[in-house]
Amino acid sequence: MRRALTFDIGGTKIYHTIIDENGSIIGDIEKYHTPKSLEEIKTIILNAVKKYENEVDTIGISTAGAVNNENTRVISSTGNLVSNYREFDFQSISKLPVYVENDANCAAWAEYEIGASKNCPYSVMITLGTGVGGGIIINNKIYKGKSGAAGEMHFKMYSDKRRKCTCGAYDCFEAYASGTGLKKTAEEMSGNPDITTYDVVEGADKGNQLMKDILAKWQKHITLGIIGLANIFDPDCIVLSGSMAQFVDTKEVEKEVNNEIVTTKTSIRLATAGNYSGMIGAGLLAIKSLEG
Amino acid sequence: MRRALTFDIGGTKIYHTIIDENGSIIGDIEKYHTPKSLEEIKTIILNAVKKYENEVDTIGISTAGAVNNENTRVISSTGNLVSNYREFDFQSISKLPVYVENDANCAAWAEYEIGASKNCPYSVMITLGTGVGGGIIINNKIYKGKSGAAGEMHFKMYSDKRRKCTCGAYDCFEAYASGTGLKKTAEEMSGNPDITTYDVVEGADKGNQLMKDILAKWQKHITLGIIGLANIFDPDCIVLSGSMAQFVDTKEVEKEVNNEIVTTKTSIRLATAGNYSGMIGAGLLAIKSLEG
Repeated sequence: MRRALTFDIGGTKIYHTIIDENGSIIGDIEKYHTPKSLEEIKTIILNAVKKYENEVDTIGISTAGAVNNENTRVISSTGNLVSNYREFDFQSISKLPVYVENDANCAAWAEYEIGASKNCPYSVMITLGTGVGGGIIINNKIYKGKSGAAGEMHFKMYSDKRRKCTCGAYDCFEAYASGTGLKKTAEEMSGNPDITTYDVVEGADKGNQLMKDILAKWQKHITLGIIGLANIFDPDCIVLSGSMAQFVDTKEVEKEVNNEIVTTKTSIRLATAGNYSGMIGAGLLAIKSLEG
Repeated sequence: MRRALTFDIGGTKIYHTIIDENGSIIGDIEKYHTPKSLEEIKTIILNAVKKYENEVDTIGISTAGAVNNENTRVISSTGNLVSNYREFDFQSISKLPVYVENDANCAAWAEYEIGASKNCPYSVMITLGTGVGGGIIINNKIYKGKSGAAGEMHFKMYSDKRRKCTCGAYDCFEAYASGTGLKKTAEEMSGNPDITTYDVVEGADKGNQLMKDILAKWQKHITLGIIGLANIFDPDCIVLSGSMAQFVDTKEVEKEVNNEIVTTKTSIRLATAGNYSGMIGAGLLAIKSLEG
């Protein structure tokens, strides 16, 4: 059975492990803080490659940032990573084939292969974390657009400049549906600038009405965003992943979405491929690409 | 050279003509008011088939309403057409192959084959008329989603229920970017319930500041909608078609869009395949499907 050494390179952490062609994690999961220089990032990766490359057939890399259509390099600047990250020639790390893909796309692929969107030719995955990521599966493939950067969940929730988004524009879905968005909504509705997302979910859980209203407002924005995506893509399902997804009532969202869309009914699901779905997806993509 | 008899079946008019495999119109363009019963619609079509089927290789039908992925029948209810239109078995009209596709998708295909998005593997076409239509080209094919209904331009411009859309929901792109949307914006900004889109474009043309502001507001909503689509699809281009497209300053929209998107630069273009792009697209799709 083929195996991949697979990495997840994020703004704060780097992970690596080994997976097999079924998507099972068969190695230790090793974890590092993301260093501040490209050379140090490379050192972590090269050490792992040196240690494990004889045990695997290929190398997969799930990374922050948009990845080109050839799956060889990062094409966007990623605020969370070192500024010269785009110069990283991933193929230089090993004589084995190296397959690079954006982390949200990798996670969507893991859901498609072994998770919530298995057997769904058309799906949209939305990762709700500190920010919002997007991965689109069309016709059983990751949709990347002309350059590789597609699937950015920066579409408007309002048209009158209310809330600035991390992208520099205003009122993107990310600015409302993310954890940061929930905190901002909580600040606005509570008048407390120090309120945390923890305060909201904990308070709502204990029955505090204001906290429940804040959480409902956050979920409403997510619902309205999903309605747009469902009308545009007519997908088999929409998968919610990331640390904030657990606070979404997917049954209620699904009901509201299907009540409003003009396309055919869709399904709203929580991701099931787990916390390491980025690494699993990258590894599976790397193994798949060996087939040519 | 292969030829298609091709129809455009809309809520108010039915057209038919003959096109060749280059997309050139080589027949007379015949026009009818859309009758009030399915039987009368069929009669118009059957008369044309009887008259022309010996001169062509296939039959294309561009129709209002979502069309299934097999391109054989309409799957959605279309408010503008007779209620039993979905029962229409299009293949029954002729022994020749009959290829059916949604009118916005047909128009997008005509732009892809002979118009503004030629040689663009990834594009989104937005038809700005009384309503708003959408046609998405992905990987050189029409994107239809799981059921055939994809490409509906019903995503939110606001999240606080300001303006009802024809789809029954609130604040869809269609409710702001359409001609009807322009009239509504004009009513709100002028306080005059009888103002027409003609008043706005004529007044703006003559330098009336309020009319210029109204048109700018309408264009702003279009720009913000396009920003979302460009971030989601990372397309080669976005094509604007329909009777209202001529009033959009595409250069300005392109500049604003490229200034704001997080994906790579895209191009905003006016459609060039002409008023009969629906028929041309349907005919070209019908001819293409003969190739298997």
